[in-house]
Amino acid sequence: MVLEHASTAVTRAVPVAPVTARAHGLDVAAFRVDAEGFWGRRQAVNAEATLAHCLEWMDRLGWLANFDRVADGGPLDERTGWVFSDSEIYKLLEAMAWELGRAPDPALEATFGDLVDRVARAQDDDGYLGTAFGHPGQAPRYSDLSMGHELYNMGHLLQAAVARARTGAPDDRLVEVARRAADHICREFGAGAREGVCGHAEIEVALAEAGRAFGERRYLEQARLFVERRGRGSLPVPPLQSPEYFQDDVPVREAHTLRGHAVRALYLSAGAVDVAVDTGDDELLAALERQWRHTVARRTYLTGGMGSRHQDEGFGDDWELPADRAYCETCAGVASIMLAWRLFLHTGDVVYPDLIERTLFNVVATSPGDDGRSFFYANPLHQREAGALAIDGVNTRAEGGVRAPWFEVSCCPTNVARTLASLSAYALASDDEGLIVLQYAAGEVDADGWRLRIDTRYPDDGRVRITVRDVPVGGTRLRLRIPSWADGAVVTVDDAGPLVAVPGWFDVDDVIPGTTVELDVPLHPRLTFPDDRIDAVRGGVAIERGPLVLCLESIDLPAGVSIDEVSMSPVRPQSFADGARAEVIPRRRVSGSETLPYTATPPRATSGRPFPVTFVPYHRWAERGPTAMRVFVPVHVLEEDPAAP
Amino acid sequence: MVLEHASTAVTRAVPVAPVTARAHGLDVAAFRVDAEGFWGRRQAVNAEATLAHCLEWMDRLGWLANFDRVADGGPLDERTGWVFSDSEIYKLLEAMAWELGRAPDPALEATFGDLVDRVARAQDDDGYLGTAFGHPGQAPRYSDLSMGHELYNMGHLLQAAVARARTGAPDDRLVEVARRAADHICREFGAGAREGVCGHAEIEVALAEAGRAFGERRYLEQARLFVERRGRGSLPVPPLQSPEYFQDDVPVREAHTLRGHAVRALYLSAGAVDVAVDTGDDELLAALERQWRHTVARRTYLTGGMGSRHQDEGFGDDWELPADRAYCETCAGVASIMLAWRLFLHTGDVVYPDLIERTLFNVVATSPGDDGRSFFYANPLHQREAGALAIDGVNTRAEGGVRAPWFEVSCCPTNVARTLASLSAYALASDDEGLIVLQYAAGEVDADGWRLRIDTRYPDDGRVRITVRDVPVGGTRLRLRIPSWADGAVVTVDDAGPLVAVPGWFDVDDVIPGTTVELDVPLHPRLTFPDDRIDAVRGGVAIERGPLVLCLESIDLPAGVSIDEVSMSPVRPQSFADGARAEVIPRRRVSGSETLPYTATPPRATSGRPFPVTFVPYHRWAERGPTAMRVFVPVHVLEEDPAAP
Repeated sequence: MVLEHASTAVTRAVPVAPVTARAHGLDVAAFRVDAEGFWGRRQAVNAEATLAHCLEWMDRLGWLANFDRVADGGPLDERTGWVFSDSEIYKLLEAMAWELGRAPDPALEATFGDLVDRVARAQDDDGYLGTAFGHPGQAPRYSDLSMGHELYNMGHLLQAAVARARTGAPDDRLVEVARRAADHICREFGAGAREGVCGHAEIEVALAEAGRAFGERRYLEQARLFVERRGRGSLPVPPLQSPEYFQDDVPVREAHTLRGHAVRALYLSAGAVDVAVDTGDDELLAALERQWRHTVARRTYLTGGMGSRHQDEGFGDDWELPADRAYCETCAGVASIMLAWRLFLHTGDVVYPDLIERTLFNVVATSPGDDGRSFFYANPLHQREAGALAIDGVNTRAEGGVRAPWFEVSCCPTNVARTLASLSAYALASDDEGLIVLQYAAGEVDADGWRLRIDTRYPDDGRVRITVRDVPVGGTRLRLRIPSWADGAVVTVDDAGPLVAVPGWFDVDDVIPGTTVELDVPLHPRLTFPDDRIDAVRGGVAIERGPLVLCLESIDLPAGVSIDEVSMSPVRPQSFADGARAEVIPRRRVSGSETLPYTATPPRATSGRPFPVTFVPYHRWAERGPTAMRVFVPVHVLEEDPAAP
Repeated sequence: MVLEHASTAVTRAVPVAPVTARAHGLDVAAFRVDAEGFWGRRQAVNAEATLAHCLEWMDRLGWLANFDRVADGGPLDERTGWVFSDSEIYKLLEAMAWELGRAPDPALEATFGDLVDRVARAQDDDGYLGTAFGHPGQAPRYSDLSMGHELYNMGHLLQAAVARARTGAPDDRLVEVARRAADHICREFGAGAREGVCGHAEIEVALAEAGRAFGERRYLEQARLFVERRGRGSLPVPPLQSPEYFQDDVPVREAHTLRGHAVRALYLSAGAVDVAVDTGDDELLAALERQWRHTVARRTYLTGGMGSRHQDEGFGDDWELPADRAYCETCAGVASIMLAWRLFLHTGDVVYPDLIERTLFNVVATSPGDDGRSFFYANPLHQREAGALAIDGVNTRAEGGVRAPWFEVSCCPTNVARTLASLSAYALASDDEGLIVLQYAAGEVDADGWRLRIDTRYPDDGRVRITVRDVPVGGTRLRLRIPSWADGAVVTVDDAGPLVAVPGWFDVDDVIPGTTVELDVPLHPRLTFPDDRIDAVRGGVAIERGPLVLCLESIDLPAGVSIDEVSMSPVRPQSFADGARAEVIPRRRVSGSETLPYTATPPRATSGRPFPVTFVPYHRWAERGPTAMRVFVPVHVLEEDPAAP
């Protein structure tokens, strides 16, 4: 059954508000996450440090001044940054808007207003907004749809405006600016006008949501046109590039998997879900669900990371999931959550919040350092050599296991910021029957007639206690997500005996004020083996603990032992702090007769003495300084006795 | 002992003629390879098809017309191709020059002359030659040393002129043009003048050899300056790039390994060896030998291929040798041979011709198709999905296992052409004591007083029969290279009993006319295991046969069986045609309880029925049409019986 409800989008502070949905998200302010918990700490650091950090860098690099130059008529030959630098200001505005919706702050409100004013001044009379094209001395508007990012930039402008409108300021100047930009785009790219699409998908998801938020069906129609036009080879292909890079190789409804540039593919798919849902296009939806399943089953890392290749920041082939060169761009993690969230709202299927949890804890939480002022751009699962130095300037990709304050293409910090600021909107949902708890964090819920107190130290501890304070008149079912990895979870309702809770949904019906529900998910560390078609980690084993992927850091090994020269017996590890302890075995080197690292002698397991080591959460990687790291450790293969029969 | 000999370079038709050397190469015409053998066939196809093919494409794409436009004063805004397209004409000229030295041909001679005339007309009065910079409407000369490739281009001009001068035309117009270009470079970049280096190394190795060939010591001095200047951060770093890309991060004599862009690193090292040898710089030589050993031991594929990364066409970290994403650019194979050959000439060490053989048979021979009109650019060791279509136009990188006629960056076809045309110069060498046979092919040798007949069907067969017809007055030792992989080789001299020949050198002293030497290298297929620090192929095994790496192609598997779902018992395979037969075992899939390809269940070996399959030489990959392919196959791991004690 699909719940049809009228659009309450503008007044409901959620990132995604489909017209029809199985479930809908809660207001960003409806779940107040405790400041001490895993996510609460990160939201606080985001608010206190990251937002200002991003603004500082964009100011320093002149990306903000680009708007002033356009407003003042020049000098435009002094424009700095890539053609997509405008989008970073918009993503920061979106992060600020969610943060203001979550926790009002006059100083931030003032900063936000000033920024919007600078942006607004740069808007052309016809609604076009962009600092890199179309002004004296610049290339004409839309003269480089493949790589110019003009619609991509305005897409992020729309997303910022949606956040602003839905967090209580529907008449904000930003909203007005965004509506004029959207109107401009509809005129320029509507049916019968210019037949193009943007090389970097984003405008689709943005227009669809702007249509919902601002009550403009024609924005959705424009999103639909963009989705339908893609995959027909309309984009000129830059040198050494291919149409697959921007998903212009195959129409969305015909593709069998996500492919090409990972962030583009995921943004496009998110927008296509919005279009499919709001137009009732079941064929398109089925295609997107199929592509998601294929991608998750064959092109996704244990961390939830997507995009295997540094080259083109792209998905690889099926099973091409190298640990060491895993790109797993932070932004692709954010985009994967955007897509999974939309599919969840439509289907109500538990697989989507399962993947969201994995990605939140192991990609989104991995990128920012404790201080909120340094970030990983790529998130590999294996680093052979520790980076040597802290990075204090603009960096290319923060390779080498050291977080960097800013990047040449600095899309990740603002993407992390907008995700953390709006995080609580992904934690719960409601449907006809009641409330659904998707992600576990301590805090207070006050939404749709429900009032709950959630107590937990998750993911340090697997116990979650929910105290119901109030329930609505309608559906009073409390639904809990039992994670796919949970083994032996139990739920206790009030004074009744514990009930076994298998992965999937666990429903507590007829909840009343005063009901307490306790979920207990054992978080003992567990071994996880890769499908043996993933060549790059064949014969390896990882340790997970609850939602956390763990890793072995060189800093936790005795001096002289390399992370790349130990094996592990596939014996269940012991719990240790928020990680695990496991025994590893030094691996004897193969010494070749040749100069090359290939020999006629098969590798033999060593007889070295096993010793215990600590595995720590992957998201904490390199927090203690640059280290070598690995998630998968080779399984110890017993030496066969040549004398045995 | 180092043999000092006066420079006879101009009259000796070799690519490399150091002033002092342990050994020196034979004239390109001194070893006439039989047309029917492995390399003879390829040399014939190169002469008959590849040279004309390259010329056709460069004409079609306007790369030749670029020279006319410069000569005629415009219109230069119609220039086509990358800034380095000039170099392709020069590499083709070099290939033609070697071919003319190997087998004179009046038609080719005429084509060569016409090409040289077109090039010469474009030379500026002061000796500068380049079609992309410095003329009206173009950026100024040397305004983009990082990426402009001006010195790189002129380097290839010099190498072509060296080939021309040494194959009997020291007064050719090409030589005159090259000398004027070299003089220009010395004026522009000499001591006290411009302090720069070129982003793509090449001019170093070219100037060093031009200095030898033309008797101009100052060219060597200029090469020395370029080598010494690199690694000091003088090159502006383009966006998303790093100084390592062009080896500008660490001075050559301080580096511990090759790194960054593979072709650049290898060309630079080759030039640095030349400089070190001719200036007696033992410290620099020791550094280069150390870097070579490190690179070969930790950054080189079983095929001899170098350069693991598509991104930046670069070396990876130590042990970063993924089979599927192996870049192994054909040009890096050529460049690796250039470097190893120089180190061999200086040291006389057998490790260098060992690597040259591996690289010739498994990289250089792999690139061109049978017709000599299609090429691999990258040479991966694993292709999961067969390419769908033949490629008939300009291609990016010929990914997907289909050779392409031409590339956007089409450096490989002409590099293969110049290597095949000069190949016989790398097959033998002479030193104070006599003659050294390095690579085995049937043919006639006539050099330095030696006359030999070599009969063999190598590498189809391991028997090599050498009949000595004449020997010089001096050293009469015949030295044979016993390949590092050879197990059970024997040498029979005249009627004496066979002698065991272990890998390394085997010397037959006091050879006289009429002596026959038979080498018999058993070519049974053998298993080869990777060092277990190479994560990407851990637990895998490859099959080699003599100098050939073999591979499993999907076309040789029964319908419905994927190359990625079989394992192999580590049992010695049987010989079969020029490949091998081995039993493989279908591998049962791990089926996960989650949507992701990671499970709590360790992968289990299958109990499927083994069946025999054929492994074919890797260099023949995709000759029968697009197929999936792999070199390393997972070793079958026996299922442990849980009931066993």
